[in-house]
Amino acid sequence: MIRVGMGFDVHKLVEGRDLWLGGIKIEHEKGLLGHSDADVLLHAVSDALLGAANMRDIGYHFPDNSSATLDMDSKIILRETVRLIATKGYRVGNIDATVCAERPKINPYVQAMKTCMAEVMGIDEDRISIKATTTEKLGFTGREEGISAYAVCLIEK
Amino acid sequence: MIRVGMGFDVHKLVEGRDLWLGGIKIEHEKGLLGHSDADVLLHAVSDALLGAANMRDIGYHFPDNSSATLDMDSKIILRETVRLIATKGYRVGNIDATVCAERPKINPYVQAMKTCMAEVMGIDEDRISIKATTTEKLGFTGREEGISAYAVCLIEK
Amino acid sequence: MIRVGMGFDVHKLVEGRDLWLGGIKIEHEKGLLGHSDADVLLHAVSDALLGAANMRDIGYHFPDNSSATLDMDSKIILRETVRLIATKGYRVGNIDATVCAERPKINPYVQAMKTCMAEVMGIDEDRISIKATTTEKLGFTGREEGISAYAVCLIEK
Ligand SMILES: [Zn+2]
Ligand SMILES: [Zn+2]
Ligand SMILES: [Zn+2]
Repeated sequence: MIRVGMGFDVHKLVEGRDLWLGGIKIEHEKGLLGHSDADVLLHAVSDALLGAANMRDIGYHFPDNSSATLDMDSKIILRETVRLIATKGYRVGNIDATVCAERPKINPYVQAMKTCMAEVMGIDEDRISIKATTTEKLGFTGREEGISAYAVCLIEK
Repeated sequence: MIRVGMGFDVHKLVEGRDLWLGGIKIEHEKGLLGHSDADVLLHAVSDALLGAANMRDIGYHFPDNSSATLDMDSKIILRETVRLIATKGYRVGNIDATVCAERPKINPYVQAMKTCMAEVMGIDEDRISIKATTTEKLGFTGREEGISAYAVCLIEK
Repeated sequence: MIRVGMGFDVHKLVEGRDLWLGGIKIEHEKGLLGHSDADVLLHAVSDALLGAANMRDIGYHFPDNSSATLDMDSKIILRETVRLIATKGYRVGNIDATVCAERPKINPYVQAMKTCMAEVMGIDEDRISIKATTTEKLGFTGREEGISAYAVCLIEK
C-alpha cells in the first residue's frame, strides 16, 4: 500500500536567531522565529509524513505552547515522526522538498542537509531530494520577511 | 495504475458571509467570498482528484458564471467529482490536505470535516487527512485577507 | 518502483517580454522575466521530475548565470530533464500542474499546452494535466506582479 502526503510551513526571518534548515545551522544575518528551532524544512517534511499516514500534524504532536517543545531541535520532531508512522506499519518511500528563500543561497548546503536528514530518519540518502528556489523578490519570501518550505512524500506499508 | 494529483485554491475573507470549510460551517466573524459557498478545502480536494484523473478542474465542470452553481454547496461539487473520476475507472487512494489560515483555529474541526468528507465521497475516513497551519502573520493568509488550501491525492484504477 | 516529486516556480510579469506558458506563446500585454524564456509552468514540471528522481533542480542543471541558457527555450530544459531521469531508469507516470495567474485566462490554452508538452516529453497526452486558478486578487499573483506554477508528478522505473 502506497500513500502520498504534503507539508507546507512558514516561519518569519528575524534578527537575533540562528538559521536552522534541514537540520543544519547556516550562516546568515537573520534566523527563523518559532517556539522550536523553527526549522521550516524539517517541519514541512514531518507534516508530509504525518499527513500521508493520516496522523494529524506536528502542531498536534508537538504543541507550540508546551515548555517541552521550547527551543526544541526539530531533528527530534523528524525522528519521532518516522517512529510514529512506523507504529502504523509505514516506512518512507521518497521525499521531495522545496525551500523558498530569497537569501541565503541554499544550494551549497543541500548535500549536508540530505546527509543529516537521512541519518535522523534512518533511511538511504537517495530517498530524500531537496530543492531551492527564490520567488524572484515577490511575496513575503521575496521581501525576505520569511522562508517557506513545501514537501511531498510517498510512504509504503 | 496509480496517479497523483494536486489542488490549490484561494478565497477572500469578507464580512457578511458564512465560513464553510471541509463541508461544515464554522463560527467566525468573516466568511469566504465566492460564487459557490467558497469552501476552499473542498475545492482544493476536488481539483486534486480531477487533476490526477486528467479531467480538467472544477472551474471547467462547475463554471463560476453559471446560475446553476450560484451559492452551490461544495459538497455537491466533491460528490460529483468522485463520480466523474469513477467514469474513467478511478477510485480515491488517499488525500492529504492543508488549510492555511491565521484564524480561526481549524484543528478543533478536523475530525468533523473528515467525517463529513468521507461520507460525501463514500470512502473510509482513514483515506482523508486534513492539516492546518498559519503562515505566521505573513502574506495574505497571515493578514487574514483570505484562506488558502492545498491538497494532494493518489487515485488508483 | 514509484517516486513522487513536486515543483514550484515564480516569475515576475513585466512589460516588453513575451509570455511563454506550457511551451506556447500567449498574447498578453506583459510577459515573464527571467534568464531563459521564463516559462514558469515548464520550469515547475521539470523541477518536479528532477526532484522525484533525486537529481537536484533546474537551477543546478541549467544555471541562470550562464550564457548557454540565456533566452533559452524552456522546452529544451523539459526535454533534457526527461532524458536525465531516463539515465537513472525513470519514466514519467503522470503530471498534474496548476498555474496561478489573475490574467490572462489560461483555460483556452490548456489543450495546446498539453499537446506541446506531450510531444516535447515523448509521452502520451493523458499523462499530463494542467489546471489554472486565480488567487482572487490576493497576493503577488492576485496583484498581477507575477505568475506562479505548481506541479506534482509520479515517476516509475
Ligand atoms: Zn514550523
Ligand atoms: Zn474555490
Ligand atoms: Zn523559472
